[in-house]
Amino acid sequence: MTRTSLPVIGVDLGGTKVLSALIGPRGRVLATDHRPTQAARGFEAVVANVVASVRAAARQGNVPIGSVAAVGLGTPGISNPRTGIVFCSPNLPGWDHVPFLEIVKQRLGVKTYLINDANAAALGELKYGAARGTRDFVYVTVSTGIGGGIIIGGKLYTGSLGMAGEVGHIVVEPRGLPCNCGGAGCWEMYASGTAMARRARERIQGGAQTALVDMCGGKPERVDAPLIKEAAEAGDAVARELIAETANYLAIGFGGLINVFNPEMIVVGGGLSKIGDMLLRPAFRGAAHWSYADAYRVTRFAVAELGDRAGVLGAAAHARDELRIH
Amino acid sequence: MTRTSLPVIGVDLGGTKVLSALIGPRGRVLATDHRPTQAARGFEAVVANVVASVRAAARQGNVPIGSVAAVGLGTPGISNPRTGIVFCSPNLPGWDHVPFLEIVKQRLGVKTYLINDANAAALGELKYGAARGTRDFVYVTVSTGIGGGIIIGGKLYTGSLGMAGEVGHIVVEPRGLPCNCGGAGCWEMYASGTAMARRARERIQGGAQTALVDMCGGKPERVDAPLIKEAAEAGDAVARELIAETANYLAIGFGGLINVFNPEMIVVGGGLSKIGDMLLRPAFRGAAHWSYADAYRVTRFAVAELGDRAGVLGAAAHARDELRIH
Repeated sequence: MTRTSLPVIGVDLGGTKVLSALIGPRGRVLATDHRPTQAARGFEAVVANVVASVRAAARQGNVPIGSVAAVGLGTPGISNPRTGIVFCSPNLPGWDHVPFLEIVKQRLGVKTYLINDANAAALGELKYGAARGTRDFVYVTVSTGIGGGIIIGGKLYTGSLGMAGEVGHIVVEPRGLPCNCGGAGCWEMYASGTAMARRARERIQGGAQTALVDMCGGKPERVDAPLIKEAAEAGDAVARELIAETANYLAIGFGGLINVFNPEMIVVGGGLSKIGDMLLRPAFRGAAHWSYADAYRVTRFAVAELGDRAGVLGAAAHARDELRIH
Repeated sequence: MTRTSLPVIGVDLGGTKVLSALIGPRGRVLATDHRPTQAARGFEAVVANVVASVRAAARQGNVPIGSVAAVGLGTPGISNPRTGIVFCSPNLPGWDHVPFLEIVKQRLGVKTYLINDANAAALGELKYGAARGTRDFVYVTVSTGIGGGIIIGGKLYTGSLGMAGEVGHIVVEPRGLPCNCGGAGCWEMYASGTAMARRARERIQGGAQTALVDMCGGKPERVDAPLIKEAAEAGDAVARELIAETANYLAIGFGGLINVFNPEMIVVGGGLSKIGDMLLRPAFRGAAHWSYADAYRVTRFAVAELGDRAGVLGAAAHARDELRIH
């Protein structure tokens, strides 16, 4: 057995849940573990949960941890994959330039690599999902925020410090809402699930006539994307408007990505993509208005295929890629 | 003499002028020719001028055209460098999906390659100018419009159809002015020289107290970037405001490029960059507000070094690169 045919472990660290998967050749999932992140308990607690989850995934697959070729840590927020420092992460309070990779690597005693979570998902879709066989594509994940991953020449592009792909922080409303990146009017402040829910609350509080009022039990803070989808499917005009507005903002960003990258494909994943055609069709079609016709015409749009597995598969693929190099 | 040490000819085709230069190894300019484009006379006339200019540059350098290793055509507008088709070009009226490369190549009987003009300038700055030694950088040219060139891993990135780098058409004002790309609110509609002159006219027509009124001889349509610079240097408050507004819009776009590319460097060229520190310092500094602090901190900003030679040097470098491959 060659070293690279040994299984690797991909980790998808989220704000609420850690998912670890033991992955064999060709992306076969051999075993998984998931457990709470306990982000509110701070950095040390999260590290302990990640380490325990990786060990549990190995155990589940009857593989001694020493026989795991490498571990890939898919991590939310802004980080430098080369040094393994996580600069900040909206979903992991208190993470401020923490040496996450080094600490996990030492505790596990296994070769370990770090990758941004959206970059991991992009790599997953490239190797095993919607973007197989493409060379230049942009992955966009739309959920509470908007993240991205850029594949150029069949490889992940991470930039000079490994932070590239923060497409959610392209400015689309210069006099718009402050963003927790420090800027204002960022794409994710207008086209994410959070943004759509915020606009719904504003409508409700402004006295709009909508089924959402009853559906949220009179608690506007409970309105979220699945509820808006449900209302829209039932014919609620306000819910339909909210989805149309979000589609238009998505289209603006897709148009910009087409003009800048002239990609073969844009792949959209993340929770909000589960709204499906009602949101994505007008978003994809609308991008024509915000991009050059010739570049738009050759851009294929696709929904991410790997769902919740994109992160672990991509993190594992990254670890395998790095292994070949180092 | 090996084939690649033979001189190449770089062409910078502009809306008003064709510049051709015979270039030796290491970017040495051996001879040049420039003549009017005569764009208004249509495609055939421009082709004739380009062919004549290339031949004249060879003649100037005492090199038979058959001893020129290759010709690189730096061409404005949207084109596919692989097929050599120019889809459209705001500065070349009537160019609608024309096979520019094929026709010039046949007339010259020399290996000929096509490259977008801003991409050529990016390549020029990479090989001989401000970005020597960098691997990942974004070149932005700001003049009547905004163009760009993306260098990734030390190579020009052109996308699936060769149209990548149209950074001037990222949307910064979704409810903004229609752009001749078909979209609206594009960066170049707010941060270019044309945009600054338009705002100056609007101020003057709105009755603003500014030295620009006298300086343009009462003809607001004559106000341009150099005039605004002059007025600002003389202390005119309106002119200073116009430059500050333009700097802010430039900063918004630079911030987006930093978040998406995490580049080592942003190089700014084009006519508007000649305003210098008064415009570029606040633009560079302002980008901090519109980007992640860690990515901003590692981004160097530089003014293009090659000036009017960037286009011919880059087009020649492109031809030389292609020659090694084909």
